[in-house]
Amino acid sequence: MQNFTHCIPTTVYFGKGQVKAVSEELKKQAKKVLIVTGGGSVKKYGIFDDVIKQVKKAGIEYVELSGIKPNPRLKSVYRGIETCKKESVDFILAVGGGSVIDAAKTIAAGVKYNGDVWDFFIKDKGLFPADALPIGCVLTIAATGSEMNENAVITKEDTRRKLAFGSPLLRPVFSILDPEYTYTVNKYHTAAGVADIMAHVFEQYFSHTPAYAQDRMAEALLKTCIHYGPIVCEKPRDYVARANIMWASSLALNDLIGEGKEQDWASHGIEHELSAVYDISHGVGLAIIAPNWMRHVLSEKTIGKFLEYGINVWGIDKNKDKMAIANEAIDKSRKFFNSLGLPEKLSEVNISNERFQDMARNATKHYGKVGHFKELSEKDIVEILNMSL
Amino acid sequence: MQNFTHCIPTTVYFGKGQVKAVSEELKKQAKKVLIVTGGGSVKKYGIFDDVIKQVKKAGIEYVELSGIKPNPRLKSVYRGIETCKKESVDFILAVGGGSVIDAAKTIAAGVKYNGDVWDFFIKDKGLFPADALPIGCVLTIAATGSEMNENAVITKEDTRRKLAFGSPLLRPVFSILDPEYTYTVNKYHTAAGVADIMAHVFEQYFSHTPAYAQDRMAEALLKTCIHYGPIVCEKPRDYVARANIMWASSLALNDLIGEGKEQDWASHGIEHELSAVYDISHGVGLAIIAPNWMRHVLSEKTIGKFLEYGINVWGIDKNKDKMAIANEAIDKSRKFFNSLGLPEKLSEVNISNERFQDMARNATKHYGKVGHFKELSEKDIVEILNMSL
Repeated sequence: MQNFTHCIPTTVYFGKGQVKAVSEELKKQAKKVLIVTGGGSVKKYGIFDDVIKQVKKAGIEYVELSGIKPNPRLKSVYRGIETCKKESVDFILAVGGGSVIDAAKTIAAGVKYNGDVWDFFIKDKGLFPADALPIGCVLTIAATGSEMNENAVITKEDTRRKLAFGSPLLRPVFSILDPEYTYTVNKYHTAAGVADIMAHVFEQYFSHTPAYAQDRMAEALLKTCIHYGPIVCEKPRDYVARANIMWASSLALNDLIGEGKEQDWASHGIEHELSAVYDISHGVGLAIIAPNWMRHVLSEKTIGKFLEYGINVWGIDKNKDKMAIANEAIDKSRKFFNSLGLPEKLSEVNISNERFQDMARNATKHYGKVGHFKELSEKDIVEILNMSL
Repeated sequence: MQNFTHCIPTTVYFGKGQVKAVSEELKKQAKKVLIVTGGGSVKKYGIFDDVIKQVKKAGIEYVELSGIKPNPRLKSVYRGIETCKKESVDFILAVGGGSVIDAAKTIAAGVKYNGDVWDFFIKDKGLFPADALPIGCVLTIAATGSEMNENAVITKEDTRRKLAFGSPLLRPVFSILDPEYTYTVNKYHTAAGVADIMAHVFEQYFSHTPAYAQDRMAEALLKTCIHYGPIVCEKPRDYVARANIMWASSLALNDLIGEGKEQDWASHGIEHELSAVYDISHGVGLAIIAPNWMRHVLSEKTIGKFLEYGINVWGIDKNKDKMAIANEAIDKSRKFFNSLGLPEKLSEVNISNERFQDMARNATKHYGKVGHFKELSEKDIVEILNMSL
């Protein structure tokens, strides 16, 4: 295990009706709030009204920034920063999913920075926020884990770059996780969320660092997704299933299972290139890419981790041939995603091989090194993309 | 899953040499520190010197409170409170194991309270600390999880009561977890620590509340203890083993695996009566009691959880007879503790049945209700104690 510093100060209010905590939390630290929302579903399903009731109860002023899209755009972030400055906003409340939260985080950092907030996304610049507005979340889809971590991913439309940045200042001070707020997420996006959660676990699980406790917990979260994934897709109002998936989504990417480990993140690097250019759902892209990434990196050197995965997560007979276990585990992953209604191939979401070379170049150029479990060259990335066609 | 509020703001510095973080942490929030230590091993093995170097580096004054015993006494706590008041201490640094940390927590609450700090331990009084000094920890044994939670257990010598209290104000602001600092813990106390960790998991795992994600994580921690327990006992300087056990000890009782669940805590209720009267090691008492508690509560109503435990944790064949699986799981738990060198019977630690009735009465009187997975009457407790003789 490598050395690490672990600190997750976000207060999570988990369960039915927990939105009631919003007024007390805001009273503690806000005078004027920017409420960030997405495409309108929070208004359609009454969640926005629940939140506004709390904001009014706290006697706090608010302004709105609505219309944040999936794969959130830098342009919306700029709009939010401008509003915050003009309106002297001192707290940002994200009401939505990962895209809304990531936009809120980036606005929070941008308000306190004199330069262009995109600077933080360019690794070469080596810049980190020195200050940020505090943010809170009311989560409406289980997927990204952004509600409990310090990262944000934003797409710059003109250059088609989708990049990430992070800072401890961006970890939400509170997050409301009410599983009932996810009842109205449709089957496709529910499934994409489950794939996203599992992909986050894969990125931390597939590693050469020995970290037994973390890895068994990672398997616990994968088993939770495998057990409840089909249920949330078929019975969207099953509270226990929604609750387990929601809590798994936060724990999958709040640092817990990745502490002290070298992590991979190659599948995410590749997927970000895809969704930057083609604007597909992140979880859908990951469901297509991750099993092919697995197949590509499987070798005599990496097989140990695949054996753990196959035996501990999928219950494959440990007496089988090693390579057979590894391949069966990968097959089962692929089939599981498909069973949730997610596509297997990029062609199913209208992506051709036209820009694969550019994507591979961009990924390796930006990250310097793509993947740690196995470092990927441009050629490797193109190969994984071709496997996914 | 029940509703819950989750917040673990302790900053954990995990790994070799992490004591170096002490000076920066103290500089942030302390002017004069009370350093609390135990029986002298931290001085013998150089850990105290490492800490003092950091305190001096921070340019901070300090006073010492040494000699905190296992099953820490209220008398030492009073001494600490007096010193803090007299010396205007504004921060408490615990350097030791659970007993030292629990004493530090109780001192921290006592300094800011005008009445007798023991008031907080008497459930009937319904009192909670309104303020407390901040505390930090340098951990030297993996066992109680006190380094990352809000609870403390103290023994009042004259009445032989060992009771617990807790408050969010008592969760350490930082904890140093250096696995190398546990290298010198002897085999017996290392084993008792492992039993303590596992018992903490049992208290949260054995529950009727459906909480799949939490339960799979609980199993992850049990597997970590089963895998590395024998190694830390036989190879005390195995870094990876010590690191995994140390991190498991914190995660086993920092709220993570118990969130949203009704918890049991009957074994602890019984063990506290034992160690209050006979001053045995808490982990030793738990290793004796827990398997007998399991056997006592096993029934058609509770068997489901024992099946999960036997199949998922001990890898018992799921096709066997249900009651056979449950009993085999209990046998394996008992044998595991014994294999680490821990006693099986109270008679091995010189405890007779003389005071069983009093203990049972005290436990039920104080807690009102002992156990939730199965509520225990005085008669049940006496029976479990007799099974343990």
